Amino acid sequence: MKLVSFRYDGNTRIGSVIDDTIIDLNLACRSMLEAEGQIRAQQIAEAYVPANMVEFLQGGEQSMNLAKHAIEFVKQNTEPFQYKVVHQVSDVKIDAPVLNPAKMICVGHNYREHILEMKRELPPYPVVFAKFSNTILGPQDDVPHFPVSEQLDYEAEFAFVIGKRARNVSQENALEYVAGYTIVNDVTYRDIQRRTIQWLQGKTVEGSAPMGPWLVTADEISDPSGLEVVLTVNGEERQHSNTRNLVFTVQYLVEFLSNLMTLEPGDVILTGTPGGVGVARDPQVFLKDGDVVRIEIDRIGVLENRIKKVDLGE
Amino acid sequence: MKLVSFRYDGNTRIGSVIDDTIIDLNLACRSMLEAEGQIRAQQIAEAYVPANMVEFLQGGEQSMNLAKHAIEFVKQNTEPFQYKVVHQVSDVKIDAPVLNPAKMICVGHNYREHILEMKRELPPYPVVFAKFSNTILGPQDDVPHFPVSEQLDYEAEFAFVIGKRARNVSQENALEYVAGYTIVNDVTYRDIQRRTIQWLQGKTVEGSAPMGPWLVTADEISDPSGLEVVLTVNGEERQHSNTRNLVFTVQYLVEFLSNLMTLEPGDVILTGTPGGVGVARDPQVFLKDGDVVRIEIDRIGVLENRIKKVDLGE
Repeated sequence: MKLVSFRYDGNTRIGSVIDDTIIDLNLACRSMLEAEGQIRAQQIAEAYVPANMVEFLQGGEQSMNLAKHAIEFVKQNTEPFQYKVVHQVSDVKIDAPVLNPAKMICVGHNYREHILEMKRELPPYPVVFAKFSNTILGPQDDVPHFPVSEQLDYEAEFAFVIGKRARNVSQENALEYVAGYTIVNDVTYRDIQRRTIQWLQGKTVEGSAPMGPWLVTADEISDPSGLEVVLTVNGEERQHSNTRNLVFTVQYLVEFLSNLMTLEPGDVILTGTPGGVGVARDPQVFLKDGDVVRIEIDRIGVLENRIKKVDLGE
Repeated sequence: MKLVSFRYDGNTRIGSVIDDTIIDLNLACRSMLEAEGQIRAQQIAEAYVPANMVEFLQGGEQSMNLAKHAIEFVKQNTEPFQYKVVHQVSDVKIDAPVLNPAKMICVGHNYREHILEMKRELPPYPVVFAKFSNTILGPQDDVPHFPVSEQLDYEAEFAFVIGKRARNVSQENALEYVAGYTIVNDVTYRDIQRRTIQWLQGKTVEGSAPMGPWLVTADEISDPSGLEVVLTVNGEERQHSNTRNLVFTVQYLVEFLSNLMTLEPGDVILTGTPGGVGVARDPQVFLKDGDVVRIEIDRIGVLENRIKKVDLGE
């Protein structure tokens, strides 16, 4: 499934994208249960397939399977629905698939060639740092460039989302704990990142993590290695690598991180960025108002956002 | 008020500590409204004074005032209550005042003498880094020492909690955005903190942020400067400073951070630790099983936790 959060009629809900339509998972589930004669259909649908992505992921495999059945029900159903179960993509606003993760964990220095361009050595441990969820934007949002720095930079990132509470998980079992995959642009205010020894302040500026266009569930990507990652700015290629170049794989990261902390459903892990970021180019080049940053990753899709300079008087 | 989260009969609720008792704020509010003849008392109490601290803080001044009125009502009421409004402190489990903040932002290198003992210069900008909420423990919990490192260290921290959404707030108005103050021990796995250039992995290990014993509301501490901070391990003094030695004050931090991001009610900001941490002592000394770490801060109180080594087979 391609799972999205979307806004319709003032509410944010979750759905599955199929071609040009979105199936509202909660209402699909409710409709299916009602068709089966279940009097408590609404309550059961709320419990297993709530309209919020993190809460839905908390339901684990059981919720995921119920959602899949509900989609099949909708596809085969020929009666008119009592609720607005099916939307045209063009009629709704698509938000980031995960809007309120408890953790956003970023990995630095994880593509071999990016490590080399930054003139660093291959690390024995992953470098991890944080963004907070105040950074999250959707695939249809402009990325605000706040006038706190002129050095706004892009970072194409292949990201995975946790689907099952994970603590001390081994690499062998790691993929069972992954709900799916998405794309994040780890937008960075480069000089703010570097003005102290800890990067957080340049990484968690408001609106600096556009995410999407959707969460591709893990059953559709059995191997997260071998996916091409390409980032362009206004059509010009700036980053190009493949997830097989990750020094620390998805499986390694699940083991590494879950040995330190409990990973929860909805936690988003950004696996790092390939070479070619603006600050490392010669001459350096930073993002400016109106630039269009496009990230494409095999088998996921395209995340494209425009940069919008914010006036001081915002 | 001294606000706590507490567990009773399987539920986590919030309350105000008065001597040896805790007043359940939600039920106090409901009881007051019912006594006033308000038929929708339960719903109004849920809306303004919910039983979760972050949600309560989201209600801002209006919720805070209603809670204060409800406490006065309880104090003056002579009738038996219909609900369990008043608890003995000894009958409940006290948890961290804020259990699920969206952000925990830590400031490094913020006490003049700690900066000097770490052989660093006074910084032009605050060094900020993150912990995630998986670290949070209460004042009655043991601090787990997971066998991922032998270098478990303490850091006494004066912390403040945001009470009002803050973006681009000036120092002059900053204290209006602070709900209150508490104590956090920023427990650190020192070698893990330092094995890469970013500290997050040694800072966000499970259970590494005991917090409490309560949140003292800002009306009781008009000036967050001038508070003595003392940390002892098994009764031996290890850290001792005063919040007037902060390089970056509470007011400065609200301005600095809110210029980068939106601070939300419930966000916890740890202001940094004084000199005297274990890793900087000669010889170095780290925490071991059974050690009792006690942090006292003027006008807040005492946060005391025991270290408990966790077996590999946990």
